[in-house]
Amino acid sequence: MTDLVTFGETMLRLSPPGNERIESTSAFDVHAAGAESNVAVAANRLGADATWLSKLPDSPLGRRVVGELEQYGIDTEVVWSQTGRQGVYYLETGTSPRGTTVIYDREDAAVTTAEPTEFDAGLIKDAGIFFTSGITPALSETLRETTLTMLKTARNAGTTTAMDVNYREKLWSPAKARETLTTLFPGLDVLVIAARDAETILEYEGDPRQLAHQLGSQYDLETVIVTQGERGALAWHDNVVHDQDAYEAETVNPVGSGDAFTGAFLARRLAGDDVGRALEYGAATAALKRTLPGDVALVTASDVENILSERNVLIDR
Amino acid sequence: MTDLVTFGETMLRLSPPGNERIESTSAFDVHAAGAESNVAVAANRLGADATWLSKLPDSPLGRRVVGELEQYGIDTEVVWSQTGRQGVYYLETGTSPRGTTVIYDREDAAVTTAEPTEFDAGLIKDAGIFFTSGITPALSETLRETTLTMLKTARNAGTTTAMDVNYREKLWSPAKARETLTTLFPGLDVLVIAARDAETILEYEGDPRQLAHQLGSQYDLETVIVTQGERGALAWHDNVVHDQDAYEAETVNPVGSGDAFTGAFLARRLAGDDVGRALEYGAATAALKRTLPGDVALVTASDVENILSERNVLIDR
Amino acid sequence: MTDLVTFGETMLRLSPPGNERIESTSAFDVHAAGAESNVAVAANRLGADATWLSKLPDSPLGRRVVGELEQYGIDTEVVWSQTGRQGVYYLETGTSPRGTTVIYDREDAAVTTAEPTEFDAGLIKDAGIFFTSGITPALSETLRETTLTMLKTARNAGTTTAMDVNYREKLWSPAKARETLTTLFPGLDVLVIAARDAETILEYEGDPRQLAHQLGSQYDLETVIVTQGERGALAWHDNVVHDQDAYEAETVNPVGSGDAFTGAFLARRLAGDDVGRALEYGAATAALKRTLPGDVALVTASDVENILSERNVLIDR
Amino acid sequence: MTDLVTFGETMLRLSPPGNERIESTSAFDVHAAGAESNVAVAANRLGADATWLSKLPDSPLGRRVVGELEQYGIDTEVVWSQTGRQGVYYLETGTSPRGTTVIYDREDAAVTTAEPTEFDAGLIKDAGIFFTSGITPALSETLRETTLTMLKTARNAGTTTAMDVNYREKLWSPAKARETLTTLFPGLDVLVIAARDAETILEYEGDPRQLAHQLGSQYDLETVIVTQGERGALAWHDNVVHDQDAYEAETVNPVGSGDAFTGAFLARRLAGDDVGRALEYGAATAALKRTLPGDVALVTASDVENILSERNVLIDR
Amino acid sequence: MTDLVTFGETMLRLSPPGNERIESTSAFDVHAAGAESNVAVAANRLGADATWLSKLPDSPLGRRVVGELEQYGIDTEVVWSQTGRQGVYYLETGTSPRGTTVIYDREDAAVTTAEPTEFDAGLIKDAGIFFTSGITPALSETLRETTLTMLKTARNAGTTTAMDVNYREKLWSPAKARETLTTLFPGLDVLVIAARDAETILEYEGDPRQLAHQLGSQYDLETVIVTQGERGALAWHDNVVHDQDAYEAETVNPVGSGDAFTGAFLARRLAGDDVGRALEYGAATAALKRTLPGDVALVTASDVENILSERNVLIDR
Amino acid sequence: MTDLVTFGETMLRLSPPGNERIESTSAFDVHAAGAESNVAVAANRLGADATWLSKLPDSPLGRRVVGELEQYGIDTEVVWSQTGRQGVYYLETGTSPRGTTVIYDREDAAVTTAEPTEFDAGLIKDAGIFFTSGITPALSETLRETTLTMLKTARNAGTTTAMDVNYREKLWSPAKARETLTTLFPGLDVLVIAARDAETILEYEGDPRQLAHQLGSQYDLETVIVTQGERGALAWHDNVVHDQDAYEAETVNPVGSGDAFTGAFLARRLAGDDVGRALEYGAATAALKRTLPGDVALVTASDVENILSERNVLIDR
Repeated sequence: MTDLVTFGETMLRLSPPGNERIESTSAFDVHAAGAESNVAVAANRLGADATWLSKLPDSPLGRRVVGELEQYGIDTEVVWSQTGRQGVYYLETGTSPRGTTVIYDREDAAVTTAEPTEFDAGLIKDAGIFFTSGITPALSETLRETTLTMLKTARNAGTTTAMDVNYREKLWSPAKARETLTTLFPGLDVLVIAARDAETILEYEGDPRQLAHQLGSQYDLETVIVTQGERGALAWHDNVVHDQDAYEAETVNPVGSGDAFTGAFLARRLAGDDVGRALEYGAATAALKRTLPGDVALVTASDVENILSERNVLIDR
Repeated sequence: MTDLVTFGETMLRLSPPGNERIESTSAFDVHAAGAESNVAVAANRLGADATWLSKLPDSPLGRRVVGELEQYGIDTEVVWSQTGRQGVYYLETGTSPRGTTVIYDREDAAVTTAEPTEFDAGLIKDAGIFFTSGITPALSETLRETTLTMLKTARNAGTTTAMDVNYREKLWSPAKARETLTTLFPGLDVLVIAARDAETILEYEGDPRQLAHQLGSQYDLETVIVTQGERGALAWHDNVVHDQDAYEAETVNPVGSGDAFTGAFLARRLAGDDVGRALEYGAATAALKRTLPGDVALVTASDVENILSERNVLIDR
Repeated sequence: MTDLVTFGETMLRLSPPGNERIESTSAFDVHAAGAESNVAVAANRLGADATWLSKLPDSPLGRRVVGELEQYGIDTEVVWSQTGRQGVYYLETGTSPRGTTVIYDREDAAVTTAEPTEFDAGLIKDAGIFFTSGITPALSETLRETTLTMLKTARNAGTTTAMDVNYREKLWSPAKARETLTTLFPGLDVLVIAARDAETILEYEGDPRQLAHQLGSQYDLETVIVTQGERGALAWHDNVVHDQDAYEAETVNPVGSGDAFTGAFLARRLAGDDVGRALEYGAATAALKRTLPGDVALVTASDVENILSERNVLIDR
Repeated sequence: MTDLVTFGETMLRLSPPGNERIESTSAFDVHAAGAESNVAVAANRLGADATWLSKLPDSPLGRRVVGELEQYGIDTEVVWSQTGRQGVYYLETGTSPRGTTVIYDREDAAVTTAEPTEFDAGLIKDAGIFFTSGITPALSETLRETTLTMLKTARNAGTTTAMDVNYREKLWSPAKARETLTTLFPGLDVLVIAARDAETILEYEGDPRQLAHQLGSQYDLETVIVTQGERGALAWHDNVVHDQDAYEAETVNPVGSGDAFTGAFLARRLAGDDVGRALEYGAATAALKRTLPGDVALVTASDVENILSERNVLIDR
Repeated sequence: MTDLVTFGETMLRLSPPGNERIESTSAFDVHAAGAESNVAVAANRLGADATWLSKLPDSPLGRRVVGELEQYGIDTEVVWSQTGRQGVYYLETGTSPRGTTVIYDREDAAVTTAEPTEFDAGLIKDAGIFFTSGITPALSETLRETTLTMLKTARNAGTTTAMDVNYREKLWSPAKARETLTTLFPGLDVLVIAARDAETILEYEGDPRQLAHQLGSQYDLETVIVTQGERGALAWHDNVVHDQDAYEAETVNPVGSGDAFTGAFLARRLAGDDVGRALEYGAATAALKRTLPGDVALVTASDVENILSERNVLIDR
Repeated sequence: MTDLVTFGETMLRLSPPGNERIESTSAFDVHAAGAESNVAVAANRLGADATWLSKLPDSPLGRRVVGELEQYGIDTEVVWSQTGRQGVYYLETGTSPRGTTVIYDREDAAVTTAEPTEFDAGLIKDAGIFFTSGITPALSETLRETTLTMLKTARNAGTTTAMDVNYREKLWSPAKARETLTTLFPGLDVLVIAARDAETILEYEGDPRQLAHQLGSQYDLETVIVTQGERGALAWHDNVVHDQDAYEAETVNPVGSGDAFTGAFLARRLAGDDVGRALEYGAATAALKRTLPGDVALVTASDVENILSERNVLIDR
């Protein structure tokens, strides 16, 4: 039995070194990157057995993705496809006032044709938590259906279901995202949503605590987490709201810190921690992720616990 | 007036450093690469004014391609598209017995929607030579039509038309290539074909001299060049066959040497050289290309002429 | 007709990676760098057709410079010289309290022998603006004369003349700079001067607004811009002073931000913007330049306009 | 059940880039490298489920090793040790007449304390083949005992036992190696030995076919393979000797080609191939390994089969 | 005669590029690093003739260390050992809240067997100052004895003796450090101690000024320096306490800044500066060190003096 | 007393990585390179104490040169100049038929003003051998005089004088070289000359043995060495000619192999070897140099002796 099963697309991230522009770069650094594999890695690092499900082209590019994820310690269950592309995204790292920008090149990726019957449903049924993000149903009509089916499979088997909204404006409009995602919310136990995404797609402009309460009630959720970037996060659970400040970090790469938060939170919940304690782990793991160049939280539990115990050492020698 | 106008797709070539495998690389070197821009660069290096026509996405990736081509000194006339991808190919450099392999990721590239009306026909009409390769019509039905129209525009205006067959088995079947290309051959003045492509798509298995003669007669061509890799090349012209040995080269990267050959040959023909002399330039430029890491013949006329005059110096200091 | 013609030296910039010292580096990154080509690139990026005039050695080093500038999209009109060196400068990037330092190695550069008759005067006469910097006349007696002649050619043809003082203490003394530059000021329409340079070479220690007014009146200028680094800039025009704050930037490389400011300002003036609006473009382009590793403002108009419209996004995906 | 279980040390290989010397390098490339993990990777690539057993320090260095091995697709069962070092070796790549040299820094590695009871014996008992190399018992007295015990465990459970002699003169003397290894030979089913090692440690100077026969008879082995580098290999099995030529290869890095040979041979034997066919796979995999920069055979079955079917393509596009 | 002789271990520092983790890095940057050679380099840069004594393995790794130190300009007197390892440490550079961490791999280093008789005592006797750090006696019992003997040799010859406590918790316990070091303190003229080390090993929790006074009196020292990181340093000398603020620095790499401080202080004392002036040089050199990627203060006297004279220039051109 | 003193210019060698062209490179590798320092390094590696005399600009560039030479183990006696440039050369590494090319940028180098009185004549007088190359007098009229004076100083003091002709066609014409060098030959004991240089500047076209004899007699030399690249070398000494084949080498970088030959030959002569044995060392060291990326023979005596004893090992482990 696996503690956590996640499902979604993982792309190759191609990024110019340092602060070079895509327009003039002579090289790209290569990483495997995707919200659901990021969540699996973070959870695994915090002690959960984690498996990532996906569909990839049967090519060196697809194997490149799986190799990197296995390197990070998670298990992978991949449908190897003879058709469909390997999704790619180009990441240009800016500093203020030049933002970090992303060019997606993920259309017709193999994963967009993934159907539930291609995967071993037993993996989802036996898991403690099944997780996917709001990106997955945005990728194709097929994936919308697959996501819905997998969530149902999980719930029927007693597996906790979790989703991070992760709105991407380069993938779909707010209206389309709202329409699709709100059909999925009723099947969820745990919902993670950024306050800015709630504003954009749900047109919610009020207090985040109120937002969490409202979403929890409306969709009969067990836990609602509202993240607010540097202002921290809060979790609504059993009608109680838990607040969590963000840990300050000198940021090397912010991409993936939300996934690190969610993965660590879920891992600690699986390990039996209460919501408040799990939030602390989530926040500390997110802060550590910000100090790392890739998109994944390549941390250890003791790295995280050093932060929680405020045992910060500038140089440990 | 431009001496040479070429039309076709130029991709981003992503290649792992050295002999690394795609499956395990942590970086890709980036180059702009395409048969028709390669031909334009080689021709420009040998003294011709060369312009490359194409259609690219209006994005940092498309600008990355144009920037590199401009760096090499050619002119570019690009239709900037709001739709369509930037074509990419992954190149893994092997040594024997592991071959160099290519993964194309060029479907739905912006260029596949290029129509003749998007370009200034005057550029083609005023050119000395119009060139495209057999890759272009393989990319889409639209490009097949566009190629045909451009060749007609050129011929009607008295512009010499030239094509290199460049068969790519990862793009289309031999039968489909034959069907399409043989409808284009009657509109050509100059045809370049590798002996192995003649074997594959024309099912021609005889003597290359005979092949040249036969193609020239059948399609009423002015010049037919048959290339045979390390065994050199020959040109049929005015019913005479000119033989040309290949120059020996210690190969750093063989990709693009055929384009270097063709570009140099066309440039020297434009400059008034006879076919035999132009062949020598072609062969020497192809040999130099093999000593260079990118796909383009970043040479000077005097580099080439040193080879022709057998003035080889191991270290020039 | 070109909108903007600039004239001056562009060097190869050799810089150790990261914060390495020249004394112990094992590699140099290579860039083409020069005030006037920087201005041309920034102007081109903001919509102006820009041509850079210069003289370079007919060597791979000279071609290296031109190739990079063409890559950035500007036109180049270069006199290829059989004598004279390629100017080089070594740049060591420090952090406080170790300053960034420059070692010039530009004596006897080919450009120091450039005479007006070597260039097509028509390019200057047909331009909207002719620009050079105060560095050019510092490089040789010949260049002092050439600069004077070109400014006269421009003015006589109705081309707006512009200069950025750009005082370099490693090239000449304040007294020598003042003597030379003040003979050129009367031929200018637009003068850009850093407040600290006014202090150093003009021994002006008062209010920058007063400085602008005084210079404008004394030399009968149309526009005077006084830049003050992080404190912004101001422009005196039609007897009115326009103030412009600097945009905050997380600096990757400050070199070239002044040139970016000037190039963007001139481009927007050419496009018909009033002085105040052009100043905003200048300031925003300068801020973006600071986020880029090279010396040129490799930006797009929309990058700049996002800043002007305060549409800053941390991660755009 | 795993098809192949291997046991041994895997080190970090630190190698200067290209042909730099250790004495003056400013960087090391990092790879995980060890005979037994190399064998596991090659076997896995040819279709076997392969698991590598070892003991590593519980540190980022130990995790670095496991991460890379997992990336290559094998399973790892590691005892994480709170004491003992991570073994390291420095590899300097020479060209003739400067040989490639190795500096071992593997004393007191955690693995030298590995005892049989630390591992799950079931993994060995359930495996098709258990493999270790002659390096393992050279590393410590404890490992000599552990190797002996594991071989007994395997044999008693009906698991085929295999060993590659892999003599390392920097680890022990020929006499000591002979004394130790010949006590292990009687427990083996498959013995792989280089002809030069037989000469060095067994003082055998005759015909390799005779050597294979003699070793097979003396130690009651099922299969004896004698490798002879570029002259190929032979296998004695059922009293028949099978000869296998080496495939020619343009060598990028020869290290690990013997392990690739053995891994592929064992995988194909597990898959039911006869000895002659398995030898062909071994030889082709060894040739491919030589074209790769790391120590492992990062190949696919189809890469190997292309060689066996003589379908060599210079550029596959 | 040498001005300064230092004695201690210098290791190879292996560090992943940028902020990569050891666990996933594909390369290590290589530097020679050790407290006593760092001190020698800093002193040499500030004008002292400095010689570093040590014992290294007679291997490319040992020569790698000496080569780099000679590159920095100091003299080296090395006993080349046929046994013993080259000490190594792995450095992972973090940003807050992920600390910079060090993994030592220095056990059984050749230097741990260094005995006084292996070195030319004349070098120590003729020196102005003999320096070692508290790390040296922590490395082996032999080195504890050797340190004691060398300090005696120095003192008897009238050479000033100096030590920096440099407590390393990964090498020994506070109690063991206290026991060993306090036996050495009576042989010292100059003692440098970080306030945090005094707290850890001497369990001193009071005012640093009081600490300096107390240590000076108790052990009959000539000079006591207490360093307090960003809060600066103080020196007790002739019963007077001199305070020195730290210079602000934008830190690239903090490792080695304490050694830079000590080396510069000693060099300026040797040159005749009073304690207060020497402290200023120490603080300025430490600040410059923080701007450099390696562990050594690769500065010039004029770099330091620019800071002392507050002649800071952002870009010097 | 130093065994060998050499005098000449050492430049910074800037070379694009791999086989990149200067025209399109984005980086240069940096090395210190000069015939006389190369000779000193090779001699030092073979056991001689070697000191290199020169004059360099007092700048980070000049210190970069000295730092690298000290790293290689030689002593340096440098006159630090406040005027004059640091000589630079750009090296582009070709493969056949594209030659390796060099662009010198060494005019007005500080060394061109070096006068004998700036150096400690005692160093030359006390040396066993004084060496310079034919490049030195080619660099300036001053250096021609300085070379002559130094040779006289050496000879008068009984120091053996040696010169390698090293004709550089990019520095001077054959006629000018002949005129200058033949005035220096009478002051020499040992003359090294490439057969091709004898052909070019002495217009000698006959047998190399005869050449050696003729030069020895004409100029009253003690030893004449004629080198013939891959065909080996010969030495005329005491009226006997010693032949030496070249050792075959897989060449990584041929630059500097002649200097390696000369340095090793001189070192072994200083150590008392006869001419034949010293030639063997020279040839073996030259072959090793060819396997190294830089210009210097970073070898050990045992590396060389392994070749002499034909103890070649492909992989030493």
